[in-house]
Amino acid sequence: MFMKEALAKFILKKVKASDEELALILSYFKPLAVKKKEILLREGGLANKMFFIVKGCLRIYFVKDVGTEVTRRIIFENDASASMVSFITQKPSNEYIEAVMNSELLYMDRKDFYYLVDTVPAWEKFYRFQLEYAYVVNTNRLMSFITNDATERYLSLLKENPEIVKRLSNRLVANYLNITQEGLSRLKSKL
Amino acid sequence: MFMKEALAKFILKKVKASDEELALILSYFKPLAVKKKEILLREGGLANKMFFIVKGCLRIYFVKDVGTEVTRRIIFENDASASMVSFITQKPSNEYIEAVMNSELLYMDRKDFYYLVDTVPAWEKFYRFQLEYAYVVNTNRLMSFITNDATERYLSLLKENPEIVKRLSNRLVANYLNITQEGLSRLKSKL
Repeated sequence: MFMKEALAKFILKKVKASDEELALILSYFKPLAVKKKEILLREGGLANKMFFIVKGCLRIYFVKDVGTEVTRRIIFENDASASMVSFITQKPSNEYIEAVMNSELLYMDRKDFYYLVDTVPAWEKFYRFQLEYAYVVNTNRLMSFITNDATERYLSLLKENPEIVKRLSNRLVANYLNITQEGLSRLKSKL
Repeated sequence: MFMKEALAKFILKKVKASDEELALILSYFKPLAVKKKEILLREGGLANKMFFIVKGCLRIYFVKDVGTEVTRRIIFENDASASMVSFITQKPSNEYIEAVMNSELLYMDRKDFYYLVDTVPAWEKFYRFQLEYAYVVNTNRLMSFITNDATERYLSLLKENPEIVKRLSNRLVANYLNITQEGLSRLKSKL
């Protein structure tokens, strides 16, 4: 139950739920410990889990050309995520989910997730807020690849997501910005 | 009421609603006739309307560099849309919404929209489905700019959205693909 305290807080920050509703929701989450570099979902697989990060970090990325990884999203503690397009459509995922470091997760199976959406109003509302949030974060992220240059992306990263720069390797920061490590060094030296 | 028949069908295709619920929902939609090239939302404005297209076509686009328009979405009859990031966050829009031709629309004001989300379960569910759909369509669209070349984008357009090629000018088709009109001609001649 201790692991679920942070999750309960995360949910109650977004919606009101009775003790009963909350206990029911939490009862569907199961613990999962993953090792650094462990892959939780591969391109072509079906996204059938929603993850909450108790400790550690997950990275969601897609492969642009043979071998070129582009990081779509990095999630630290006290946040939840899935490969949403595949989770919603149940078509094969275009993305990978990887543990950036040893991590402790809680996850809910997709069928339980939608069962709760249909039966627990607080969870339906929670999902709606999560969808709105995911829409905004993901659109802004993908638009930044199309409309911003690397320096603009780096400056907005420092402002909106400094934890990525503080906690992750230069390799991953560069990958998040979709530039090489040399490009990142040059960019920093010019600022 | 005649204009609202298509809208009622559109809603009932996605969710069950009682006659009462449906009448209430429809009562919040107002008609709006717009001329070709009329702008419904500008960059920097607040998105406070959800549009349903009865007749005609809307285009949502953003400006990449000075003067370079990139079309994010084209919506024909019997579909609904808004500039969702601004609609959700109530921050200034990064996008424009333009009527591609003379069009007949129905729209709902944002405050009415969320009032119904909070009070009419069928509308809450409808919004959830719309959000899921918007997430999937928008993510696939923006990812295609990052991962696919122009030929791949054209082939998937022919497959998934042939109406765009059939009904719109070469200028708009090229813009939707984010290439020049000359690029589009070259590409077609090679297929």
